[in-house]
Amino acid sequence: MIDVANPMFDVIQSDLEKLEDRLKEDVASPVEGVTQTILDLITSGGKRIRPALCLLAAHGGPKFDLERTMPMAEAMELIHTASLVHDDVIDESDTRRGTATANARWGNQVAILAGDYVFARAFSLIADGNYDAFVTKKLAELVSNLSIGEIIQDRNIYQAVRDVEDYYSRIQKKTADFLETCCEFGAWISDMEPGDVRRMAEYGHDIGMAFQITDDCLDIVETEATTGKPTGNDIRQGILTLPVIHAMEVSTDAAELQRIVTDPEMTDEMAERALVIVRATDGVDFAKDKADAFLDKARAALPENLPPDIREAFLMVVDFIGDRDF
Amino acid sequence: MIDVANPMFDVIQSDLEKLEDRLKEDVASPVEGVTQTILDLITSGGKRIRPALCLLAAHGGPKFDLERTMPMAEAMELIHTASLVHDDVIDESDTRRGTATANARWGNQVAILAGDYVFARAFSLIADGNYDAFVTKKLAELVSNLSIGEIIQDRNIYQAVRDVEDYYSRIQKKTADFLETCCEFGAWISDMEPGDVRRMAEYGHDIGMAFQITDDCLDIVETEATTGKPTGNDIRQGILTLPVIHAMEVSTDAAELQRIVTDPEMTDEMAERALVIVRATDGVDFAKDKADAFLDKARAALPENLPPDIREAFLMVVDFIGDRDF
Repeated sequence: MIDVANPMFDVIQSDLEKLEDRLKEDVASPVEGVTQTILDLITSGGKRIRPALCLLAAHGGPKFDLERTMPMAEAMELIHTASLVHDDVIDESDTRRGTATANARWGNQVAILAGDYVFARAFSLIADGNYDAFVTKKLAELVSNLSIGEIIQDRNIYQAVRDVEDYYSRIQKKTADFLETCCEFGAWISDMEPGDVRRMAEYGHDIGMAFQITDDCLDIVETEATTGKPTGNDIRQGILTLPVIHAMEVSTDAAELQRIVTDPEMTDEMAERALVIVRATDGVDFAKDKADAFLDKARAALPENLPPDIREAFLMVVDFIGDRDF
Repeated sequence: MIDVANPMFDVIQSDLEKLEDRLKEDVASPVEGVTQTILDLITSGGKRIRPALCLLAAHGGPKFDLERTMPMAEAMELIHTASLVHDDVIDESDTRRGTATANARWGNQVAILAGDYVFARAFSLIADGNYDAFVTKKLAELVSNLSIGEIIQDRNIYQAVRDVEDYYSRIQKKTADFLETCCEFGAWISDMEPGDVRRMAEYGHDIGMAFQITDDCLDIVETEATTGKPTGNDIRQGILTLPVIHAMEVSTDAAELQRIVTDPEMTDEMAERALVIVRATDGVDFAKDKADAFLDKARAALPENLPPDIREAFLMVVDFIGDRDF
């Protein structure tokens, strides 16, 4: 995972520290016991990548104003947190990054409601920021698309939907739209020219696509020791990713692979066999090439006139995604 | 239940018909299969009381504009729908008003995500309406409070929290805040004077409190034949309502009642016995008096200068809540 302690985020370290304090203040509920629950969610949750991108983009514009940017950056992290909390209920996950999930600790009831609360707090922050209706609209569309993306994914499990466009559309809704909005908001709030705001949005979209493709590859090639999660997770859940879709086109064992990934009763041995089949093809290399193409587009999208240190930071983000361990 | 076909809503019948069409248009998703799921939620869901109050209040102001009011009215119904969908997942309910719940039909996954989608659509509509940040803020606070109210309720089950203030605070978050916001939004959008907007908000709060108290009484006195749901539901779920809290103060069997309502292993027979104990006290009459006091406040809150037919309609709403079957 990207970590905000990574040197590429050095230029915004003090902003990120403020973000932590502000998140804690801004999710407080008037009801004491509830506040602690929400704080636990916020502090054990995301990696702050989304607010980091928003803050970095804001530093790139001519009128950076931390106070104006902060509520947006917070809102992006809160939407992400809420969506992870609901995902964990849906997947019945007990742990996330080594910490017990909200549903495991307090039950589905509290996890669903706390997720709703955190969603609502994000919209409150945006309303308090008094930005422009376009910001609320974008944020609402983002949440709509996140939900729709997950519903489609849920519908398609074990269906062996082999359409690459379907895969791209799914990861766009899941990841790329989100990073796009973070970059776009940051650029917009610090008054970049409309053309540059669009370029920053494009950058966010491209790194989002690349990030998700590489993440999906890691589920095929990584060993549990490196990533901390077992490989073949997606296959086991009946979710087809790019390397698998490609393998279904080119593998001599395509028929067997197809049988495995469409079987809701798939055993661990079957999932392991599917991994062996995919690894024997150029599926991961094929996907990595696609990710690299998105990263090239991301580099090209960056506005020329960004301050050098900010431009450098955005390029480091691109390199980092390209260098993830495979 | 109040029904929008009730004569008190005659003055807005054509608006309510338009509302149905607009809701269907506005929840459509770009993904075909998902749209049908969401449409099923919307059309089998709420009773449209919230948008009806919003529209009625808007008719009361000097500048009624249906197009300006409609997105607000829709948003209120969507928030209500989303919250019912999540409640049904939480309560593991299979049916609501005789129709299979979203979780029963499509599983928890789709129900949680579809609820999130519908919440987000409400915020989209408000953003499209380009109102004022105060509207987004109010709506976000409403969702926060609904969630907090439910979390508190969940925490308090089988705890025999006998504090009447706790009960009032809970039903305010659950029902009164919602009806208050509906009336306030309608009054505000049609340009009532600030003092009258506050009076309409007060009216909404008061009928909301009365409505929830009478609803809680119906769970004690009604027979299943009349309301279509079994009595004693709240007791069985470990939720204390006003008649029960009062009975715990005055009943000679208070100790037994206390033992029953704090027992998470409560059987149907025990719940039935608790009902007998509560019915033997003046708990329901006590609660009905409180509801009547709120209804008197609601009548007094109505601005003097409302158009006579609108004022009459609002008074009919008050009478209707007062006349519910007990």
